[in-house]
Amino acid sequence: MSEAIGFIGLGNLGLPMASNLLNAGYGLWVYNRTKSKAGPLVEKGAHLAARPVDVVTSGGIVATIVWDDAALESIVMSDGLLEQLGPDGIHLSMSTVLPETARKLAALHAQCGSSYVAAPIFGGAEAAAARQLWIPIAGPQQAKGRVRPLLEAMGGMGIFDFGEEVGAATIVKLVGNFLITSARRTMGEALVMAEKNGVDPKAVIDMLADPSSPLLPSPIYRNYGKRFAERLVSSHGNSVSLKDTGLFQKTAQQVESPTPIADLLLDLLSGAEGRR
Amino acid sequence: MSEAIGFIGLGNLGLPMASNLLNAGYGLWVYNRTKSKAGPLVEKGAHLAARPVDVVTSGGIVATIVWDDAALESIVMSDGLLEQLGPDGIHLSMSTVLPETARKLAALHAQCGSSYVAAPIFGGAEAAAARQLWIPIAGPQQAKGRVRPLLEAMGGMGIFDFGEEVGAATIVKLVGNFLITSARRTMGEALVMAEKNGVDPKAVIDMLADPSSPLLPSPIYRNYGKRFAERLVSSHGNSVSLKDTGLFQKTAQQVESPTPIADLLLDLLSGAEGRR
Repeated sequence: MSEAIGFIGLGNLGLPMASNLLNAGYGLWVYNRTKSKAGPLVEKGAHLAARPVDVVTSGGIVATIVWDDAALESIVMSDGLLEQLGPDGIHLSMSTVLPETARKLAALHAQCGSSYVAAPIFGGAEAAAARQLWIPIAGPQQAKGRVRPLLEAMGGMGIFDFGEEVGAATIVKLVGNFLITSARRTMGEALVMAEKNGVDPKAVIDMLADPSSPLLPSPIYRNYGKRFAERLVSSHGNSVSLKDTGLFQKTAQQVESPTPIADLLLDLLSGAEGRR
Repeated sequence: MSEAIGFIGLGNLGLPMASNLLNAGYGLWVYNRTKSKAGPLVEKGAHLAARPVDVVTSGGIVATIVWDDAALESIVMSDGLLEQLGPDGIHLSMSTVLPETARKLAALHAQCGSSYVAAPIFGGAEAAAARQLWIPIAGPQQAKGRVRPLLEAMGGMGIFDFGEEVGAATIVKLVGNFLITSARRTMGEALVMAEKNGVDPKAVIDMLADPSSPLLPSPIYRNYGKRFAERLVSSHGNSVSLKDTGLFQKTAQQVESPTPIADLLLDLLSGAEGRR
């Protein structure tokens, strides 16, 4: 448990995951663009680095979880990072990005003798705290074996191996986020209809998504129903959905897979963003 | 358990539900437009009637489960049925129809002193056989109490009371079918994308919809994923979805509730129907 880990990206999800690592006894070097976010971790013993490269140990593991493809690429390309990671180093990449970005970065790592493991995370801050993260993983076999205990320590409850091709894990993540986004928007449309017809939206979702229901016994449905009833549907959720539905659409279009539902969701999400 | 029940509509779902009633010891008078469907029930002791009115006992219970609003209305309006049902009679109406149809029929029953209870059924033949039907119920309190044991005997596992206004139960059913239809079409779009990118659709759904998953641990997702992988997505499912999404759209539009997702689903489902 004493290996020092580099950790880049202390957002909504990164922060509690890094905190779990500290709690599990790992030494932690952290970097975040907004330094102040590292405060709670530094108090618990993490070392705050000035540059991405400064969290990287030669032959060690650096975990990243950042907003988008551009942010991830700029970290990987940052001065000296790939050289420092070097042979036997592993980049555990947990952001939601395009499969082509994952493949391109994996090739760059391979050139330097290090491994890129794609393990985009399903879950938010609450799921990280509850250790209920759900994770598809893809990349070189040996590297996957080495990062698995780390993912478990960060709060991974279910880790599903999708083989060596790193794009596969990112595709699973895009599919999942697309299904979840569509489920939420559909619930929005349905629950407004129920409410305008005088039926309590919460009672509807309580029935359909009850844990014992044979229909939709899913926390995604239950939580949305609860937030809808309490008028707490969040705009942060909207920007994530907008970004990731865009990645889904792009990935689908590259293989000429039709995207009528993704197209509509993007229209709806853009409108929602505009109105906020 | 000896009360004789009238049962009209021996389709995919009606047949196993009526069979459950016989197994529970109820006497059964059945009617179906296509008489031959009653064969298995008659062998088990059910009486086959020539006209809808002939299954009705004065002051008794008649259960109906038919294809659409028009079929249900034609049964209720058929010669002498309402008069025969008479005071204290109950019509247990289990079809998926518009709330306005339910309200109109409830008013007609009230004029004759009988009760109309709306209890549209979530589930198919398999769920009926497994006694896993999920049922919203609405109507006069006393009548609901009287039909509840009957619904349980037919395979009702969860029965959820939505009050006295019969339209409420039909709205819950329309919301549920809309969510399910949207989930299925979204899965279709997503799994084609995954497959065209070389990722096994079944593995994706196995992960996202695993019973222990914090994401979409729902039989709707699991079963669709399985049928998709086996190329068994059914056209019967499509016609049900097309009809019920239409009812959802109409009910929403009557209260000026926007239906962009329902509109798209109807376009997609119509196209699918046309291609088959």
